Amino acid sequence: LDQLDGQLVALPYNLVDAIWHDQPAAPIGEVTIQPLQYAGQEARDKIAQMQQSLQSANAYATVLTDPSSVAWLFNIRGKDVSNTPLPLCFAIIYADKRPDIFIDERKLNIEPRAYLTQLADLHAPEDLEKVLRQAASSNHIIMLDPALAAEKLRMIVEDAGGTVLHGQDPARLPRAIKNAAELKGSRDAHERDGVAMVKFLSWADQQKTGTLDEIQAASQLENIRAETGESFQMPLLDVSFDTISGAGPDGAMMHYRVNTESNRVAENGDLFLVDSGAQYRDGTTDITRTFAVGDVPADRKRYYTLVLKGMIAISLARFPVGTRGQDIDALARIALWKHGLDYAHGTGHGIGSYLSVHEGPQSISKRGVQELLPGMILSNEPGYYKQGAFGIRLENLIIVTEPAIPEGGDLPMMGFETVTFCPLDHRLIDTSLLTQEELNWLNQYHMDVRAKLEPHLQGEELEWLINATQAL
Amino acid sequence: LDQLDGQLVALPYNLVDAIWHDQPAAPIGEVTIQPLQYAGQEARDKIAQMQQSLQSANAYATVLTDPSSVAWLFNIRGKDVSNTPLPLCFAIIYADKRPDIFIDERKLNIEPRAYLTQLADLHAPEDLEKVLRQAASSNHIIMLDPALAAEKLRMIVEDAGGTVLHGQDPARLPRAIKNAAELKGSRDAHERDGVAMVKFLSWADQQKTGTLDEIQAASQLENIRAETGESFQMPLLDVSFDTISGAGPDGAMMHYRVNTESNRVAENGDLFLVDSGAQYRDGTTDITRTFAVGDVPADRKRYYTLVLKGMIAISLARFPVGTRGQDIDALARIALWKHGLDYAHGTGHGIGSYLSVHEGPQSISKRGVQELLPGMILSNEPGYYKQGAFGIRLENLIIVTEPAIPEGGDLPMMGFETVTFCPLDHRLIDTSLLTQEELNWLNQYHMDVRAKLEPHLQGEELEWLINATQAL
Repeated sequence: LDQLDGQLVALPYNLVDAIWHDQPAAPIGEVTIQPLQYAGQEARDKIAQMQQSLQSANAYATVLTDPSSVAWLFNIRGKDVSNTPLPLCFAIIYADKRPDIFIDERKLNIEPRAYLTQLADLHAPEDLEKVLRQAASSNHIIMLDPALAAEKLRMIVEDAGGTVLHGQDPARLPRAIKNAAELKGSRDAHERDGVAMVKFLSWADQQKTGTLDEIQAASQLENIRAETGESFQMPLLDVSFDTISGAGPDGAMMHYRVNTESNRVAENGDLFLVDSGAQYRDGTTDITRTFAVGDVPADRKRYYTLVLKGMIAISLARFPVGTRGQDIDALARIALWKHGLDYAHGTGHGIGSYLSVHEGPQSISKRGVQELLPGMILSNEPGYYKQGAFGIRLENLIIVTEPAIPEGGDLPMMGFETVTFCPLDHRLIDTSLLTQEELNWLNQYHMDVRAKLEPHLQGEELEWLINATQAL
Repeated sequence: LDQLDGQLVALPYNLVDAIWHDQPAAPIGEVTIQPLQYAGQEARDKIAQMQQSLQSANAYATVLTDPSSVAWLFNIRGKDVSNTPLPLCFAIIYADKRPDIFIDERKLNIEPRAYLTQLADLHAPEDLEKVLRQAASSNHIIMLDPALAAEKLRMIVEDAGGTVLHGQDPARLPRAIKNAAELKGSRDAHERDGVAMVKFLSWADQQKTGTLDEIQAASQLENIRAETGESFQMPLLDVSFDTISGAGPDGAMMHYRVNTESNRVAENGDLFLVDSGAQYRDGTTDITRTFAVGDVPADRKRYYTLVLKGMIAISLARFPVGTRGQDIDALARIALWKHGLDYAHGTGHGIGSYLSVHEGPQSISKRGVQELLPGMILSNEPGYYKQGAFGIRLENLIIVTEPAIPEGGDLPMMGFETVTFCPLDHRLIDTSLLTQEELNWLNQYHMDVRAKLEPHLQGEELEWLINATQAL
């Protein structure tokens, strides 16, 4: 703008709204209470902790503008956004008084309304400005996250005589560190999700080579997840993102979303990449498997195995307290790098607890400056993509474990517990490229997968599992 | 200071000087010209490039306050500092006119004086303030490196009407990227240094167990380096730092410097750690080897092998353009981390060309934010230290290689060329802990060491080399 000799001018109205004539009404999805059994901590305790952190920062109040922060803090979920159970709303949290929530009351049935009224004062969304002005008056310090808060909020605060303090959304880090109930929920959700994945993969293997297409695969997987959820009495509430179902060259497109025009039938020799996830009340899942269709050429097995080595390196990693995501990203890449290969995405992102499938601040990537802390859930998803030919990605979710001193060692080390249970396609693994340590991990992982899922399967699906988890 | 209600006040004189009565005179070591054969680039070309970079930064001039920057830029070396061939001096480099050098002329014999006079105007050190005032007048922009320049310089510039621009010492990055002549010099210096190390290690092995002490080892090594330098007609000009010679528990002290009181005789079962380096006209060396004295317990071999795995991981690493030192530090540590072990120092530091043995900006460490660039020389020195018992460190120097696409790959990858040639103690290696890839590296390294050093050795020393480099 400087170079163009322009300048930013704040307007009292939204220019997009002014010309968007057929704009739909804001969603009014029903709000539900996230049971303590899954949330693991009462909202009032979370609020008290956040008030403490505001006091430490000498802030009078903060505005939570990220609905997933409000959802986490008050233990509520919503239906305003597809794939992510968010209630669109805002909140002002004060260091020393009752919070304010700004939410369309039509989203609140009797129970959640009564629940929220115990915790906070409820306001219409359009009252945010008025209440924030009151909060900011008398030169109060209002903390805003510059990465999340609209410039409008800064203007309101300063106009009302308040002072803006920049700080990270105080829900962000505690939300990322899952408590015991959230971790149990994630483990349960992944066991159930693993059953669905095995049913899907065994079904896919039964399809005649050259007949399975991408839309069919994605919709069958969603159906199986829904049926499996029912059988566990823990229904599939949503998919956690639009399934990426890519056969052959379509698998090489990182955020591919199939449509009727792009829909492709997998041919003999293709790799089929399926990246998908579920929203269950007890947890959010995200899993990628790449499987062989017919007879796959040896070079593709080499690529698959190099990606697998990266996934195993993260799975087996131990690291001292203070280690950041960026410190271990190379472990997932070094096997590929040695062969002149890489992938143009991070190795791992954070995941919410029946919340967003992408959640910060933690990540495993070159830019992952957040220290890894016990209880964080991340993905472990190295890949390799050959444009116009195929894509390979393998994704498990992992939990950062408590520091413990390994046998014969001096220092406590953290590590990862893998919570995703689903076979890795043994037809694509060249064991001659694996070290003994890597092979041991793979065989142990498959033993664990079998033990975990066996009780929930029978007949051909059980046979498929047993074959898919055979020792290599 | 804020909390103590104090404030910094600039004084016109140095408080230390005021009470330091027996202060020795400033050194007046003889300045020598670094021959083009070793410097690889004429000083006038380096100066022209620095002037270009000042022009790009819109700076009128910069003050080089780091003597190693002046030494590098003008291709001179000195004798004012032990271990590092620095002439204490300053320089002002201008975007558009002849540089000024501030140096005690007693350091300059006829030849270096004539040489420097062709390149710059010579001034007495005490004239720096006067000349800098002139440079800063007319509101000129003077670039200062806030990590190197004294606050006094900022005050002079601003008092004279100039403007300070913060910027990294413009010699820092080009000095770190060695040219072909400097790399050849380093390779030659390391071949010679490897011969000296083998003579030393074979001599140490001949000492009766329980007789070799730390001072004896350090002084014998220095004698051998001097003799070896003579025989190559490339004399040892200095050691590049005080030799760290630590037997048994003394090896666990990271920057141990033996004295007559701490001097320790190595006992049966001890590990002996020797970290040393040389200054030759063609290059600076830095090498650490840890060797067995008598029969060493198996657990120490395990630790040695875990450290070796880290060194091998760095040696074998390939990585894409843009990779920073911090991105690969964990590769050197992961084998230790898995066993609950670590070392409390960086994995690698930069090294000068017949200059400082520690040189930035590159490093392999958690704080290594500098991209690795072809031609940089670093150390590769993982370790493990058991307080009160032993220390293990293995250190080779490595050169960052040009990006090249590995066979069967897509992307150019950089890597490392190891320039240190000296056996790793096979008596301390537990090959059962090595992968085939690691064992292959080790055997290939020992073949390379043998081929490189064999022509320069004979008799018992040659036999020792052949035994020490046997295939495992």
